[in-house]
Amino acid sequence: MIVILKKDPDPDQLEGLIAWLEDQHITVRPTVGTGQTILGLVGDTASIDQDMIAALDIVDEVKRVQEPYKNVNRKFHPEDTVIEVGGVRIGGGRPVVIAGPGAVESREQILTIALAAAEKGADLLYGGAFMTRTSPYAFAGLREEGIRYLVEAGHKAGLPVVSEISDDAQMSCFEEVDILLVSAANMQNYQLLSLLGRLDRPVILTRGFSASYEEFLMAAEYIMAGGNDRVILSESGIRSFENYTRTTLDITAVPVLKKLSHLPVIVDPSRAVKKAYLVPPMAAAAVSAGADGLFLEVHHDPSHARFDGSQSITPETLGTITRSVSMIKEAGITV
Amino acid sequence: MIVILKKDPDPDQLEGLIAWLEDQHITVRPTVGTGQTILGLVGDTASIDQDMIAALDIVDEVKRVQEPYKNVNRKFHPEDTVIEVGGVRIGGGRPVVIAGPGAVESREQILTIALAAAEKGADLLYGGAFMTRTSPYAFAGLREEGIRYLVEAGHKAGLPVVSEISDDAQMSCFEEVDILLVSAANMQNYQLLSLLGRLDRPVILTRGFSASYEEFLMAAEYIMAGGNDRVILSESGIRSFENYTRTTLDITAVPVLKKLSHLPVIVDPSRAVKKAYLVPPMAAAAVSAGADGLFLEVHHDPSHARFDGSQSITPETLGTITRSVSMIKEAGITV
Amino acid sequence: MIVILKKDPDPDQLEGLIAWLEDQHITVRPTVGTGQTILGLVGDTASIDQDMIAALDIVDEVKRVQEPYKNVNRKFHPEDTVIEVGGVRIGGGRPVVIAGPGAVESREQILTIALAAAEKGADLLYGGAFMTRTSPYAFAGLREEGIRYLVEAGHKAGLPVVSEISDDAQMSCFEEVDILLVSAANMQNYQLLSLLGRLDRPVILTRGFSASYEEFLMAAEYIMAGGNDRVILSESGIRSFENYTRTTLDITAVPVLKKLSHLPVIVDPSRAVKKAYLVPPMAAAAVSAGADGLFLEVHHDPSHARFDGSQSITPETLGTITRSVSMIKEAGITV
Amino acid sequence: MIVILKKDPDPDQLEGLIAWLEDQHITVRPTVGTGQTILGLVGDTASIDQDMIAALDIVDEVKRVQEPYKNVNRKFHPEDTVIEVGGVRIGGGRPVVIAGPGAVESREQILTIALAAAEKGADLLYGGAFMTRTSPYAFAGLREEGIRYLVEAGHKAGLPVVSEISDDAQMSCFEEVDILLVSAANMQNYQLLSLLGRLDRPVILTRGFSASYEEFLMAAEYIMAGGNDRVILSESGIRSFENYTRTTLDITAVPVLKKLSHLPVIVDPSRAVKKAYLVPPMAAAAVSAGADGLFLEVHHDPSHARFDGSQSITPETLGTITRSVSMIKEAGITV
Repeated sequence: MIVILKKDPDPDQLEGLIAWLEDQHITVRPTVGTGQTILGLVGDTASIDQDMIAALDIVDEVKRVQEPYKNVNRKFHPEDTVIEVGGVRIGGGRPVVIAGPGAVESREQILTIALAAAEKGADLLYGGAFMTRTSPYAFAGLREEGIRYLVEAGHKAGLPVVSEISDDAQMSCFEEVDILLVSAANMQNYQLLSLLGRLDRPVILTRGFSASYEEFLMAAEYIMAGGNDRVILSESGIRSFENYTRTTLDITAVPVLKKLSHLPVIVDPSRAVKKAYLVPPMAAAAVSAGADGLFLEVHHDPSHARFDGSQSITPETLGTITRSVSMIKEAGITV
Repeated sequence: MIVILKKDPDPDQLEGLIAWLEDQHITVRPTVGTGQTILGLVGDTASIDQDMIAALDIVDEVKRVQEPYKNVNRKFHPEDTVIEVGGVRIGGGRPVVIAGPGAVESREQILTIALAAAEKGADLLYGGAFMTRTSPYAFAGLREEGIRYLVEAGHKAGLPVVSEISDDAQMSCFEEVDILLVSAANMQNYQLLSLLGRLDRPVILTRGFSASYEEFLMAAEYIMAGGNDRVILSESGIRSFENYTRTTLDITAVPVLKKLSHLPVIVDPSRAVKKAYLVPPMAAAAVSAGADGLFLEVHHDPSHARFDGSQSITPETLGTITRSVSMIKEAGITV
Repeated sequence: MIVILKKDPDPDQLEGLIAWLEDQHITVRPTVGTGQTILGLVGDTASIDQDMIAALDIVDEVKRVQEPYKNVNRKFHPEDTVIEVGGVRIGGGRPVVIAGPGAVESREQILTIALAAAEKGADLLYGGAFMTRTSPYAFAGLREEGIRYLVEAGHKAGLPVVSEISDDAQMSCFEEVDILLVSAANMQNYQLLSLLGRLDRPVILTRGFSASYEEFLMAAEYIMAGGNDRVILSESGIRSFENYTRTTLDITAVPVLKKLSHLPVIVDPSRAVKKAYLVPPMAAAAVSAGADGLFLEVHHDPSHARFDGSQSITPETLGTITRSVSMIKEAGITV
Repeated sequence: MIVILKKDPDPDQLEGLIAWLEDQHITVRPTVGTGQTILGLVGDTASIDQDMIAALDIVDEVKRVQEPYKNVNRKFHPEDTVIEVGGVRIGGGRPVVIAGPGAVESREQILTIALAAAEKGADLLYGGAFMTRTSPYAFAGLREEGIRYLVEAGHKAGLPVVSEISDDAQMSCFEEVDILLVSAANMQNYQLLSLLGRLDRPVILTRGFSASYEEFLMAAEYIMAGGNDRVILSESGIRSFENYTRTTLDITAVPVLKKLSHLPVIVDPSRAVKKAYLVPPMAAAAVSAGADGLFLEVHHDPSHARFDGSQSITPETLGTITRSVSMIKEAGITV
């Protein structure tokens, strides 16, 4: 951490600051220039409250050098984390494909999609049952019934299942769900993150629409700090001024997050772009940039989907994407 | 709602769409041009799923004309909502000032600040006890004990109290808290919003960092849909590319939200700008733009605050602001 | 400037870097910690190329402590710059009002507006003649003829005149224009800025839609570096995700720019919000936040304006705003 | 175009509006609902000023259905435009690679890089000589001398050359430059665009940091409206709140722009990300998403580059990227 002092700092206050820092086992090394003094802080500065120092009268600015996250940091865990669930390995190798409808609509619907997705090369089955909707009047899922249908369809299709959870009270319904998903809207729902941190099941954490890389990794840190180290990061778009698409899919997040962290990184183009025609090129882009997986909304009849129809691809398109993914990987492209 | 069809739509599908819409008691009026057909939908289109229509093969685009929110909409409730709590009226007149520390640190601290704030013209007392922090390692408040000190300090200073709530499980601690605050991070925590919708206490809903006006109003609609119509909207900054400040305080939100909705709108400059020197000018700007209140982080000794010190103003500065607010209002400025 | 080195830097390269810096009269003070070395650079680091150092193998990151701008920097020029033009003083005191139509449409139109604006308290007259339009097919102004009408109307109304310039070739038409305006679209047109830097006339420089404070001040530095120190900064909105308004008016820019720089700062709410009903509250907010002036699009008949009608206010509304501005200032509000 | 009227519009004004529209050969079809009237406008609405209608008293909102651009619109030109220059075909097939240093530093430097780039599979040579810099004190290129060295190096390496132009006055130096590049900072320099529209040489137009797709295409329309139909669109990042990278590279722009327009679309990862380690994955992503080319900053010795060193890749990395590009294309991935 670097502390830039104001011009002519009060010597007593400066001495006080240095003494306080040394009490916290931080070594302070001042650089005195003409008109500007800089303090270099060395030691475990992650435990020092940056805001508190910035608030001091004698301080102009504080700049952090060390990252504030530990468990998710690749520096302390150089190997890729690989998460195994139901025989599927996420991270460290072949990209996986999670596919399914935005909403489980009926027993038949999810079973139809599950079988088609499995045939077209999906590795895991998604189905929404407790959905996060911006309108209180919108269809928000079949709830417990939907989870039951999803689990059954997953068994029949031979695919582990993934569904969104947004509250403690829903937990009892999720016992047979293999991976729990936190949506973008809940990335900073720290109560939920803490709860998931105490579980023994993998969690897909979706980046909030306005979360920086650091904030995203700090949210993952919340889960890992609770003891659950099976966290998968999912990029699904950030808010920008461009509104032709719902959000701007930040493909650069893939190589950045994989450099900063050892956790698997997947990409969710469907929700980011909200237009089915953009899903295949963005899926190919994500895998080429190094993504460990894709999250794709698939429906056998998008025109009649109760939810997210405009961004849902058909099983045929899913097949095209899974073939492209294999080819990109087999080509041995070194990125 | 307006439905723009693709060129040469399939006549059977078009007939099917029109029949389906009419079943929903929507009147459909087509405009046929050279190469482009537009359907004008008239009726209660709020109940129609826009995404579902957009997903149809024959549809190019759907544009909404009506707002998707009802209870918060000024069109259906032309008068300003005024919320009374402990003798303080929020909305429709003199702007109120909510003041207090980001965190209750001790019984003495909150009492000292409460008395100073009351003397300097504050109308309500804030103190954080269950804080939303981006780091799992950061100080997150004194919790139940903090709420107790806050309530006691409010009583002694004669000020109603406000504090942040983020989870159902905290509710029992908040029985004597007059107004419950939802932070920006939780604006889309729909479980929490639904819970607060069933309460009989005013709620301050803070705009999420990347929430559009419509999404913000839809979050308020969640609370009102549950039956609680005492919602106060709080603008506390949106994410933009500028990072000199933590967020960009969107003062324009004040006149816009007051036009679209009848709910009171307050502004929280402290958290938006994160720099104490910017709080007084932005507080004056907010009131001049028509804000119904200000939310100000105040600490008697910002340099030693355990939280948010860099953005906390002193009671003296609070006094300057409350005097400016009075002058702006007394000047009878017509905005 | 602070240089954060990678772990275990090559000693020869480190020695080379230090020698090179010392050649440039920079004093280097290293802080060696466990696993991290930081170099503090002291001296005239503005002349050092940050990117070049960042590109070195041994360097992890470079952080600047000093601002890269000199002439516009308040540190080296503590007093407010006051620009006088035709008896009007901009900066350092009473806020001025620049008013007029987005486009000069005819001799009668600009004269009508000029007289009405003068009567309602405007200090300077604006009229567009060489407009920046996003469409090559849109009306882009009466050009030379428009400037002639503007100058004539300004004389008759007793107001100095302001108009937009975007190219060297237009210069000959602008001889009697008192202040030249650079639009947001041209803020990074460095050829134009260099040209204006060699003039002896005041320039209003509008912030680009995606320019940070630093980039904005660096654009002003371009003009001042050429010798022209009469630069006025104009905030007219930045791009954010919110698209209810054209841009988000960044009122916080006013106190920030006035802290970082000694130049006058004006605010242009009309172009930022694109909706006339929002102009009065945002004008009041700007002045309350400390703006040195307002730039307001005024038309005697907005419904029939050829350009920017939706955001143009009438002379009556202008009168309301100028009265509010006076009251805010007379109230002696200390921000 | 759709015009949404206010409740109970004045009948005379409504009649006036309809008569005026019909004068412009626009057919008006009203949809009258309970409390809301919508006018559907059919005909060549591109020539109608949307703002002017929006400014009318009786109008609530105007929504455009048709795109405002014509020459760049794929609807009127369904086939991909292919631009040939010096034997290289850009658009419609194999992606091309433009490579070279941010700045020509010397005759030797550009020749060394040109030969290495040619050997590693580059198709065109770039070198900056008239650079756009945010600081007036920064190195802005060798100017005429730099262009001379670039042209010579291109001849020796057998590569057509590309360089940035920002002003009319520079034109005489560019006679032997095969493709002229407009930087992001100048995307809205309409004087420059008009000038380039009159040339008979291909232009690479870089998207402005805050330009929407529509604004970007309208800038291209400026060039095409002048008669020059050889325009190449270059995505090089947009401003978002994330500042780990300089801008957010918007890969989604590739399939979107290729759907809306027939012009070739290339991607410039180097300038977007400003970190060399991110260039290879983002280059692979761009090509997988369907880009017609890549623009890559290459330097034989990035640590000693006078400009853009931190984002420059070596010729070796260039070789890896050109091989990956070939493999992605050969794999026949259908996006």
